[in-house]
Amino acid sequence: MCVRTVTMNLKVPEGSNGILVKNLYLSCDPYMLTKMKKVEGPNLSGSFTPGSPLTGFGVAKVLDSMQPDFRKGDLVWGTTRWEEYSLITETQGLFKIEQTDVPLSYYTGILGMTGLTAFAGFHEVCSPKKGEYVFISAASGAVGQLVGQFAKLMDCYVVGSAGSKEKVDLLKNKLGFDEAFNYKEENDLDAALKRYFPEGIDIYFENVGGKMLDAVLLNMRAHGRIAVCGMISQYHLDQPEGVHNLIYVIPKRIRMQGLVVFDYFNIYPKFLEQVLLDIREGKIVYVEDIVEGLENGPTALVGFSSGRNVGKQVVAVARE
Amino acid sequence: MCVRTVTMNLKVPEGSNGILVKNLYLSCDPYMLTKMKKVEGPNLSGSFTPGSPLTGFGVAKVLDSMQPDFRKGDLVWGTTRWEEYSLITETQGLFKIEQTDVPLSYYTGILGMTGLTAFAGFHEVCSPKKGEYVFISAASGAVGQLVGQFAKLMDCYVVGSAGSKEKVDLLKNKLGFDEAFNYKEENDLDAALKRYFPEGIDIYFENVGGKMLDAVLLNMRAHGRIAVCGMISQYHLDQPEGVHNLIYVIPKRIRMQGLVVFDYFNIYPKFLEQVLLDIREGKIVYVEDIVEGLENGPTALVGFSSGRNVGKQVVAVARE
Repeated sequence: MCVRTVTMNLKVPEGSNGILVKNLYLSCDPYMLTKMKKVEGPNLSGSFTPGSPLTGFGVAKVLDSMQPDFRKGDLVWGTTRWEEYSLITETQGLFKIEQTDVPLSYYTGILGMTGLTAFAGFHEVCSPKKGEYVFISAASGAVGQLVGQFAKLMDCYVVGSAGSKEKVDLLKNKLGFDEAFNYKEENDLDAALKRYFPEGIDIYFENVGGKMLDAVLLNMRAHGRIAVCGMISQYHLDQPEGVHNLIYVIPKRIRMQGLVVFDYFNIYPKFLEQVLLDIREGKIVYVEDIVEGLENGPTALVGFSSGRNVGKQVVAVARE
Repeated sequence: MCVRTVTMNLKVPEGSNGILVKNLYLSCDPYMLTKMKKVEGPNLSGSFTPGSPLTGFGVAKVLDSMQPDFRKGDLVWGTTRWEEYSLITETQGLFKIEQTDVPLSYYTGILGMTGLTAFAGFHEVCSPKKGEYVFISAASGAVGQLVGQFAKLMDCYVVGSAGSKEKVDLLKNKLGFDEAFNYKEENDLDAALKRYFPEGIDIYFENVGGKMLDAVLLNMRAHGRIAVCGMISQYHLDQPEGVHNLIYVIPKRIRMQGLVVFDYFNIYPKFLEQVLLDIREGKIVYVEDIVEGLENGPTALVGFSSGRNVGKQVVAVARE
């Protein structure tokens, strides 16, 4: 990635029916790592185009508009590009921000795709029941921290794994997880899970894949559910690791289901109303890791693979 | 395994409240292979006990009974032992056979656990829709052949894989599959599936695991469903093969679900009524591979691992 400086007129050009926005916050999401490979692979929406700005989710302010649905001064969130200013002609991926009593950056995360992913993944895919045993990997990440809190709101027993002491402390002391552990300090993930789940796991929210999934399969309870949201441990590998314990799906009657947030747009209004309420009532907290300036975006984005970020990684392009 | 000859009185002993049955047909089922390992493993109901007769499903005739629900002369199917005569004290695993206009051996298969596995696995786990693309591995086996026929009754496009030319011919010419192929003749299972499913697979009924599952994951359509009924290719391995393409569960939103027939006993009456009707109307055919005599049971059972049987493997202990 490189930073390219060009000059542009801050008006929608003659003949275009787009809108011109000033980008405020950009979202770093794990799925973007899968778009960095050129090869045909399991990414949903194709690879990034070399030489062009990255696409991704963000929060922006409308500076000029040729569309009746958007007016100058409107705040929007949705699909934008990694630029200071963007001319957006396909506006069906943009949503107007109506509630501004919460930090605007939240619309890159808890109130945007990240939050909807956690909400739909937990409530729609995992079919949770009050009091169940829930395990979340990459638990301090943007999605994981919310899944854990949604589970606690249902009186579940919730344990998360993460990759540093700082993240483990965050999970236990700020995010309300019952337990958390640093997977890098565990030689035997199976033994670690048995320690925290002597009765087994009802729900696993899968963000990492590989060896953790193998260990989880050994520890699932009968009729357990696995929402497969991501497998970040595999994205940088040319050949994914093999999962060896899949056979346990049979005797344990496990249901594993892949999760893509686009399938759940229909519940966005219900989700937004509920989560705004939870935020305002202090029932949910949300941890962001914000870097300042577009020029620091590449480092932030690459940092994902090594787990450098604590909480939702956001790039602040401009504060207003 | 060995054959042991002992003498027993064909009466329920004084003080027992069991029933004494003459075993007629014994069922060979793939799950029994998982019970032959001593190690703690993914089998549902523990290992076989060395030195004791195998347990399994079968059809039997009641010779003597101390229980009011069973009378001399009744025909039953359910859990029995690999013996000529068995004293059964736990009768909750036995069902009385009321309909005898079909071959009695069918109650070891199509009208017993095998049939219910196929019926529940397809209709309850796979959520089939008319006209969908269905792939079945080990398709000429007891469960596979029925799943394929249930799918054809819903106007699905159905392809099966099997391990010999004879089995492939059976699938195409007798069991009504649209296509079938011999997996042993395919160097590239992915290419084979692409040939038969240029549009991809909606439903995969998994009986074999391993490399076939990896190839299937590459060829599933969005929102596809995989019923995991068995992984017979893995049962003889000390360490199961790794599955490398599980990551496709995410972008394709695949739902994989383990299937154990015991969870579906509640639909047995509905299933029995429907399938008896289908058999009588000639809408479903059923292929059995019957060996004569208990002494040939061990060879028949071990033959599973190498796919020697064509259709449902049954051991006829006595014809009446």
